[in-house]
Amino acid sequence: MVYPNSLADLIDCFRKLPGVGEKTAERMALAIVDLKKEDVDFFADSLKNCKDNLKKCKICGHISDSDVCNICSDSRRNNNIICVLEDYKSVFAFEKAGNFYGKYHVLNGLISPIDGINPEDINIASLEERVSKLKKPELIIALKSTIEGETTSLYLQKIFEGKDVTISRLSYGIPMGTEIDYLDEMTLDRALDDRKIIS
Amino acid sequence: MVYPNSLADLIDCFRKLPGVGEKTAERMALAIVDLKKEDVDFFADSLKNCKDNLKKCKICGHISDSDVCNICSDSRRNNNIICVLEDYKSVFAFEKAGNFYGKYHVLNGLISPIDGINPEDINIASLEERVSKLKKPELIIALKSTIEGETTSLYLQKIFEGKDVTISRLSYGIPMGTEIDYLDEMTLDRALDDRKIIS
Repeated sequence: MVYPNSLADLIDCFRKLPGVGEKTAERMALAIVDLKKEDVDFFADSLKNCKDNLKKCKICGHISDSDVCNICSDSRRNNNIICVLEDYKSVFAFEKAGNFYGKYHVLNGLISPIDGINPEDINIASLEERVSKLKKPELIIALKSTIEGETTSLYLQKIFEGKDVTISRLSYGIPMGTEIDYLDEMTLDRALDDRKIIS
Repeated sequence: MVYPNSLADLIDCFRKLPGVGEKTAERMALAIVDLKKEDVDFFADSLKNCKDNLKKCKICGHISDSDVCNICSDSRRNNNIICVLEDYKSVFAFEKAGNFYGKYHVLNGLISPIDGINPEDINIASLEERVSKLKKPELIIALKSTIEGETTSLYLQKIFEGKDVTISRLSYGIPMGTEIDYLDEMTLDRALDDRKIIS
């Protein structure tokens, strides 16, 4: 064995991270050896904290250090517009874009009967409860366009049918900066359907 | 702030690793949230262990879980051939190549008066002591070809001058698989000087 046990263990851990192969894991583990002890201790504590302290926000299901996340507790945000997302990673994507001032609702999954995931397995009941307390809310459905995403979207449309809820979805279309001739047919079809009159 | 504190701390930690930028650090931290708790605990413990358990081998200066590293304590290896290296990373490189059956001596630095690093600051005294106990040893100097490497190499030659010690250095030359026309002049010069008669 080339590496001492403590180093070999650490290399194995780094290999579990996305996009990290053997060589990179080795380089990272060796970098840890060269870090200051307090930095390494802080790293180890941060890892544990991340798993121990992060919980789901009671209101929206997003991950948070506290019972209610800082988005739900932000009184400047519009309570009446709720963007429905698959997971907390999507919340971070929206927050980084920084142009949405409503609130979120994280489903933590999508309906997929084939995988045994039914509407009651994801965070839909609390969405109904939230919506029932609002006056003329808007739900923006921002789920991916796979069978599971579409199924979940249809289900949401059905349960809010006849209630005073506006439901919208993100527009489909050409991603910014993409060459038209590289686009798949389905995206092009959708972009054509969703075209906007500009003058 | 887009991320909860625990996640933001972890992202900062990952950013300290070589080759990890903002995006990659975020992806890694999010992957940690999705890992099982026992895996994350093991990761945190491995980090601490790496810093707490690894010490310098009393004989060669290489890093090891024990007082004497497994290379120094391996009786099948030739005690009389010592490969002198700058750091423990070079030991791992040699061990992976797997063709060297002597022992190592890790200097943990190179002589560099401009940075205030003198011969007594690196692991040379213990090398002299080791060599003094051997009969006709060979020292293979495997240091990089910078001013510091050459200075250290010259210093080692000087202190073992007149003693019954064979001193060799790694050959300079063309790295395997490299195109000749891409080589720098110095390497080409050295490769010409060190040429080997093959028939």
